[in-house]
Amino acid sequence: VILTVTLNPALDLTYGVDTLVRHGTHRVRTVAARPGGKGLNVARVLHQLGEPVGATGLIGGGTGAEILALLADRPHAFAPVAGTSRRTVTVVDGDATGFWEPGPTVTPGEWASFRAHFAALLDGADVVVLSGSLPPGVPADGYAALVTAARAAGVPVILDADGEPLRHGVAAGPDVVKPNASELAAWWRTPPGGGDPYAAARRMRSAGAGAVIATRGAAGLLAVTPDGAWRAAPPQPVPGNPTGAGDACVAALARGLRHGTPWPQLVADAVALSAAAVTEPVAGSVHLPTYAHLRDTVVAEAAGPAAVPTEEC
Amino acid sequence: VILTVTLNPALDLTYGVDTLVRHGTHRVRTVAARPGGKGLNVARVLHQLGEPVGATGLIGGGTGAEILALLADRPHAFAPVAGTSRRTVTVVDGDATGFWEPGPTVTPGEWASFRAHFAALLDGADVVVLSGSLPPGVPADGYAALVTAARAAGVPVILDADGEPLRHGVAAGPDVVKPNASELAAWWRTPPGGGDPYAAARRMRSAGAGAVIATRGAAGLLAVTPDGAWRAAPPQPVPGNPTGAGDACVAALARGLRHGTPWPQLVADAVALSAAAVTEPVAGSVHLPTYAHLRDTVVAEAAGPAAVPTEEC
Repeated sequence: VILTVTLNPALDLTYGVDTLVRHGTHRVRTVAARPGGKGLNVARVLHQLGEPVGATGLIGGGTGAEILALLADRPHAFAPVAGTSRRTVTVVDGDATGFWEPGPTVTPGEWASFRAHFAALLDGADVVVLSGSLPPGVPADGYAALVTAARAAGVPVILDADGEPLRHGVAAGPDVVKPNASELAAWWRTPPGGGDPYAAARRMRSAGAGAVIATRGAAGLLAVTPDGAWRAAPPQPVPGNPTGAGDACVAALARGLRHGTPWPQLVADAVALSAAAVTEPVAGSVHLPTYAHLRDTVVAEAAGPAAVPTEEC
Repeated sequence: VILTVTLNPALDLTYGVDTLVRHGTHRVRTVAARPGGKGLNVARVLHQLGEPVGATGLIGGGTGAEILALLADRPHAFAPVAGTSRRTVTVVDGDATGFWEPGPTVTPGEWASFRAHFAALLDGADVVVLSGSLPPGVPADGYAALVTAARAAGVPVILDADGEPLRHGVAAGPDVVKPNASELAAWWRTPPGGGDPYAAARRMRSAGAGAVIATRGAAGLLAVTPDGAWRAAPPQPVPGNPTGAGDACVAALARGLRHGTPWPQLVADAVALSAAAVTEPVAGSVHLPTYAHLRDTVVAEAAGPAAVPTEEC
């Protein structure tokens, strides 16, 4: 089973309104509620692909109960916290305006309990996915501790994080790290768009990452792995909603690690699955016909410093 | 006990953000969650005044469970519905931007069950308050049916509604109706600010209302009752948040009906309590020192057509 970890899950609310007017009052025409957080989006894509998947993380309060109710028929084993899980509210009037609650403050005792809970869950896991933001109270080296536990248990681990949790997590030696262009540039302390992503990915490998799969929007993926480097992109730009493309990429990587898929094939597959998320209106879903079409079309090419123009980063 | 009816209760969320930017993404700095809906605001003010109060209405889903959890220590007897109770989201960046979910769609069977539930609760009630919007599915004559049941049980009933539910409700003969200026003008089919509120209130009495207490913002109250007409206003304008002043006024009226307070005294008391809500940041709360001060200051004067300049309406 692929175990996805969502330490700061959310109740994602999407409100349809006519036109958002600052300091106005709006009747919400349509309300959609979904479980959110990057780890749960990855789990939902894997479930859609028929992969065995389990979800864990920290959850609490009335909002946590609402999230769990929406997960009802999916396997999950969240650990409770005394605080209240967050909501996100996205107001759509053609384009989107987002409001993100911070999430509950996790106590040191709750974090210690979760680590024990996570260690027990590693027993049945083929691959672990660590994805998304940390709630207040979880230390910046929280993902590093989970990477260390997964490595000790011999379970491959994928990390999709940002900022200090990414920095600490890379140092703990995850099998795969999946930064986007701005996360990779911030990690290397270069301005976004500056610096050579190939060099940055190599540097991230030498800092501890087994493989680095850098997503670059319409420019596709750059993979720097122990077996070589590849890049791949969709044959033409895919119009739609890029939210969730990164989560679909992580889902493809988790499935590939579980099945021992060779890197060139896995990189092409991750590009196809990411593009199939862009055509969907919400994160955590892929358009299966688009995926089937692109899977037969996308081909990974060997990559190196010269093959990646810096202006694409 | 004063029984407050909230057919469309809400989970009221208030988000503090730095600056609302349309089509931007916002970190929510502060989150406050409160039970909402006008009837629950009235109940909260009555509770603050030490009056015995019970709350009923229709509630459902995860949001309903969150509302009930926030009411935990207050007496309530809500009837369940299969749909999900609404949220309201108010984003504050100095001024407020509001998003109002519509509420659950109530089935005919659920509405019939509620009417039976309400009839049973009338047994222990001294006064009934019907306040706020109807959720989808409750018929426009919903309040009228509840007024009729309360009258049949000999329980005085106060109605604070708008539009068609107000029109039907007035015809059923409630003891007190509390429109604001725009509700009264709409009921009389005159533009807001046009028409004579004294004449409109008299007309509403002849349409079925026992007494009409019209709120007029800073201009205070106009009361047209079986015993005469009065008006009263705070000695000077009260700066603050007018949301909730109407609910505090209804709370004062409910307490006055329960204790048999004479109209002039009750009108002055309602003005004082309404003004004491304006100084509070959220609806459903009054500032007790302001109330104590104004209660000794505000005096009701006899009113008639000539005493109410139309431009104040």
